[in-house]
Amino acid sequence: MDYRDLPIRDDLRELTPYGAPQIDVPYPLNTNENPYGPPPELVADLAQAITEAATTLNRYPDRDATDLRKDLADYLDHGLTVENLWAANGSNEVLQQILQVFGGPGRSAIGFEPSYSMHRLIALATATEWISGLREGDYTLDAAKAVRAIERHQPNIVFLTSPNNPTGTAMELDVIRAVVKAADEVGAMVVVDEAYFEFARPGTPSALTLLPEHPRLIVTRTMSKAFAMAGARVGYLAADPAVIDALLLVRLPYHLSALTQAAARTALKHVKALLGTVDAVKAQRDRIVAELAALGLPVVPSDANFVFFGVPGGDQKALWHKILGHGVLIRDVGIPGMLRVTAGTESETTAFLDALKESLAVVDVDGES
Amino acid sequence: MDYRDLPIRDDLRELTPYGAPQIDVPYPLNTNENPYGPPPELVADLAQAITEAATTLNRYPDRDATDLRKDLADYLDHGLTVENLWAANGSNEVLQQILQVFGGPGRSAIGFEPSYSMHRLIALATATEWISGLREGDYTLDAAKAVRAIERHQPNIVFLTSPNNPTGTAMELDVIRAVVKAADEVGAMVVVDEAYFEFARPGTPSALTLLPEHPRLIVTRTMSKAFAMAGARVGYLAADPAVIDALLLVRLPYHLSALTQAAARTALKHVKALLGTVDAVKAQRDRIVAELAALGLPVVPSDANFVFFGVPGGDQKALWHKILGHGVLIRDVGIPGMLRVTAGTESETTAFLDALKESLAVVDVDGES
Repeated sequence: MDYRDLPIRDDLRELTPYGAPQIDVPYPLNTNENPYGPPPELVADLAQAITEAATTLNRYPDRDATDLRKDLADYLDHGLTVENLWAANGSNEVLQQILQVFGGPGRSAIGFEPSYSMHRLIALATATEWISGLREGDYTLDAAKAVRAIERHQPNIVFLTSPNNPTGTAMELDVIRAVVKAADEVGAMVVVDEAYFEFARPGTPSALTLLPEHPRLIVTRTMSKAFAMAGARVGYLAADPAVIDALLLVRLPYHLSALTQAAARTALKHVKALLGTVDAVKAQRDRIVAELAALGLPVVPSDANFVFFGVPGGDQKALWHKILGHGVLIRDVGIPGMLRVTAGTESETTAFLDALKESLAVVDVDGES
Repeated sequence: MDYRDLPIRDDLRELTPYGAPQIDVPYPLNTNENPYGPPPELVADLAQAITEAATTLNRYPDRDATDLRKDLADYLDHGLTVENLWAANGSNEVLQQILQVFGGPGRSAIGFEPSYSMHRLIALATATEWISGLREGDYTLDAAKAVRAIERHQPNIVFLTSPNNPTGTAMELDVIRAVVKAADEVGAMVVVDEAYFEFARPGTPSALTLLPEHPRLIVTRTMSKAFAMAGARVGYLAADPAVIDALLLVRLPYHLSALTQAAARTALKHVKALLGTVDAVKAQRDRIVAELAALGLPVVPSDANFVFFGVPGGDQKALWHKILGHGVLIRDVGIPGMLRVTAGTESETTAFLDALKESLAVVDVDGES
């Protein structure tokens, strides 16, 4: 029996499940994880916090995750309070709740691609029409073109991603401002996905600064990247309190477990140590950018913990396989001629650069693939 | 700013967020939690398992939760394997994934009410039309009427709940069989929600026994009730492997955290101790049924860890408030003249029965409310 023999929704029939290949390799540089594990003090505190939470695990968790939301507000600062914050199981669940309440049948969302593909996929799953806007050749967003696209399509939700995944491109605040203004005029919500914000270069502004003037603006973040907590699945957003009230209409009751709430709060107590890894990751990112450029490869400037680069000859699948042959797993996001690599530790990054150079040499010798 | 000023979906405007009042009381008997906390050995093992999982918390969890699904298959037995199992953050997320892939715009689901209200609410959130079927006056389901309803409405999904919430009523296997047959004929999926199955009286059959013959049948379970793990948020289902393949189309990648997977697997190692509380809970449930009947209250036979009963005079709101005045929180599910109470420990149950008797006496003296 094949799943297509079951009465699944017709508009899901052409879909394939999202997901990078899960391959056990010495150098996993494909899902933009932070290469540094939690410090031992955090692990010890976590065991303590979980032990405490576990004694009442027969009880449902705080349905509103109030303490965690307060801690997240304190972390983001910007004058935000518990009422501006919301959290869920990864930013994917945050995005799904947004699409459920502001999107849905007969409604549409626009994103400017290439960008985080889950925006489009969750739109599809929530029966929200997806409109593919385009970025420039250098992966920046042209504000005037974005405004025209919003005026023409009148979407209900506008997605911006800054720094952008998979390209690493951060957005000027003026661009976000122009988009939010155009969205306000058509009555659309704007989601700025800042999953990689902590890796941005100094001076990069956060869309959080625009929140006080724009009740339809939502800024999403995650603890999976800079916080090195991908395994704990904690995403969150900041917005006008009315937005959080709206999300309550569709959030599954008790969606965030007592363990998740305890783990996230513990991590936020160790914010200095966790974010202390960010500079090391950024240094490796900048090293990758510099070395690839020195090799003559087209490389996109990055404000994230990964680098998007062009493949000589354009066959990214062949190069991806060759690099994998050296035990280094990077990401083919399906854009012809391009690959994405996560910045790892110094030695992981060295392994990638060595694998790349050897793979390119082989390609040279072959004169093909 | 009110959330209704935001551009939320029109069909959500009349909704209010789901949720029992969260009131801090000495005797919380309102959400069908298991009154017994996890045994100390489990808490110790959990701390150990979490500490191990935490050292690699910077990595994404196993996206397919393979080990957990294998453990759940072993627990359910019935010849099931890892490929028949699926797990998510509470059975609510399992139900949402089912409705997303088999329901959605232009599709419908039927349930026989009163039943678990999240079936209807998640149908609404996923834009699936909801059809209200009815149970008999004694809250059983008449198979012939259910079959006629399915033939008439041709739904895409049929929900059965056994033992039923909020009434405690278990379903005969013949009824389930008749419904599954009728559903097969109109091409519908059938979901049997067995959240409370472990509390059923001896001899109550599980719909799991029907799985081999019916690839469109899904049986959902939870670790929140008998397993005393409401705080960990683990729901699961058993079905044909094709059903799980279909769910992969809409599941959010990495939806189940490494902590949740570790906690659930640890609990399953302590299954004997955890399910050892079930008999004690059932004894208190039977005690409530007997004592309420002795008081002359209409009481519904229960195969769950709660009891649904009629309120003398019919004003359940007044009685709910009076009982709350004694520090005992029970549940008004919104059905006129009826209240639901969770079976607690022996002393919690005594507190409820005492509060009930005193509240009824006050109602008598008042001659009103």
